[in-house]
Amino acid sequence: VSPLWLINGIRQDRVDADDRGLAYGDGLFETMAVREGVVRFFERHMARLELGCRRLSLPAPDRALIAAEIRSVRGGCPRGTVKLIMTRGRGPRGYAPPEHAEPLRILSFEPQPEPSQHGPLRVMVCKTLASTNPSLAGLKTLNRLDSVLASAEWRAEGYDEGLMLDTDGHLVGGTKSNIFLVYGHHLLTPRLDRGGICGVMRGAVLAAAAAVGIEAEEARLSPADLGQAEELFATNALWGVRAITHCAQRGLPTGPVTRQLAAAVRGLGLEVNRC
Amino acid sequence: VSPLWLINGIRQDRVDADDRGLAYGDGLFETMAVREGVVRFFERHMARLELGCRRLSLPAPDRALIAAEIRSVRGGCPRGTVKLIMTRGRGPRGYAPPEHAEPLRILSFEPQPEPSQHGPLRVMVCKTLASTNPSLAGLKTLNRLDSVLASAEWRAEGYDEGLMLDTDGHLVGGTKSNIFLVYGHHLLTPRLDRGGICGVMRGAVLAAAAAVGIEAEEARLSPADLGQAEELFATNALWGVRAITHCAQRGLPTGPVTRQLAAAVRGLGLEVNRC
Repeated sequence: VSPLWLINGIRQDRVDADDRGLAYGDGLFETMAVREGVVRFFERHMARLELGCRRLSLPAPDRALIAAEIRSVRGGCPRGTVKLIMTRGRGPRGYAPPEHAEPLRILSFEPQPEPSQHGPLRVMVCKTLASTNPSLAGLKTLNRLDSVLASAEWRAEGYDEGLMLDTDGHLVGGTKSNIFLVYGHHLLTPRLDRGGICGVMRGAVLAAAAAVGIEAEEARLSPADLGQAEELFATNALWGVRAITHCAQRGLPTGPVTRQLAAAVRGLGLEVNRC
Repeated sequence: VSPLWLINGIRQDRVDADDRGLAYGDGLFETMAVREGVVRFFERHMARLELGCRRLSLPAPDRALIAAEIRSVRGGCPRGTVKLIMTRGRGPRGYAPPEHAEPLRILSFEPQPEPSQHGPLRVMVCKTLASTNPSLAGLKTLNRLDSVLASAEWRAEGYDEGLMLDTDGHLVGGTKSNIFLVYGHHLLTPRLDRGGICGVMRGAVLAAAAAVGIEAEEARLSPADLGQAEELFATNALWGVRAITHCAQRGLPTGPVTRQLAAAVRGLGLEVNRC
């Protein structure tokens, strides 16, 4: 299915070659699930985008405008994936942002008629490291070559996803997901102050865990910690919670905490903002 | 002066919105000086691009084709700046590179009628850190948000350039240049195995230093080392060698080693490949 495009509110699918998103990855993006005619966790996606805009000194987009444009691009289709790219817009050669930047909004929508079955994941630990930079950590910027190279690794090896470490050997997350380690009734997930992306579903799972009384903590974790975990799961906006049943040559069950949290977030994020 | 564009050999200035260069910064670039009708250090630029292509598993572009396209885009103009962006081309949503990628070549040329006078530089040390990733270190990829944010810093403070450190506090280089520290007749420059870009002019200066008997070494350097240096200079493909005469509140002279190396590289890189 080839997606539909809406760029700065206009039906078009090309951008200027001097856009800084292309030249320097000078921008941010969000990938959002449309379910039952609703953009799931729309407010959480917009909050992360707005945080990224502040960190990059970009003007934040108007939520109502984005909601209206999503309605336009999905044209009544109740199910699919919306991707929003926001760049600093055009600029002359040179890294320094232009004084009067005019940001670009690129919306695309891929309809997905049938619900997909997200089975358990087989993951490997990738050789490609996650880029470390506290100034960009947590943000979903357009600088994603680390995930690109790591994704080529797990795909070549026949896995479903790959885990990435930083230069200090600490776990950062999956190439397109966040990861959680379960010890008893305790949840651990990598601290993302040096690299990685703070996923919207990661935030929803942490909130859901708090709501059902599961203790959760962000921590510096190493590959050895994976071997100690009783359950492992990965999250992203399109999957929700997915059990990891194979990690670094080790088989794991889909455990009770994973099931509980998968169920806890299943219906969430659909209550507001009919985009 | 607005530049001329040539995209995959065709005069156009727009790219598809699903290009992976825009989506993920999945690509590389080169900025080359045209002087006296010649692309200066063309072979060095192509060698770095080809190294980047190997590291990113992109097919390397044909040097003769790039040379011919540069001739076309500059149209006989003897002086200016050529920028070549190479991306992995279009692809569906998802980090993993498509099996049959068709890379995109984006060439632009900005004529520059008059030689610019590159005076000495005033530099500050930026708060924004350089991204650390051994898999990408040295390459001129499209993931340049660290340099973008650091450039906003030095420009806001009224400097000419900013120096960047990595997460371990080691010097990486300028936002758009490589740096050299002179101690007596000895040259030091940051080792770029964890971050930064191995500049073409950096390579030319190291070769020129060897040729004139100046000992040079790549090393882990800290901001304290800047304070100890007798001379500092910065290099890039457009500047050549530029003395740093103000760094972190300290004034420095334009010293003899800087002058010698500036003179040594001045005429270099123009002997081959009339693009």
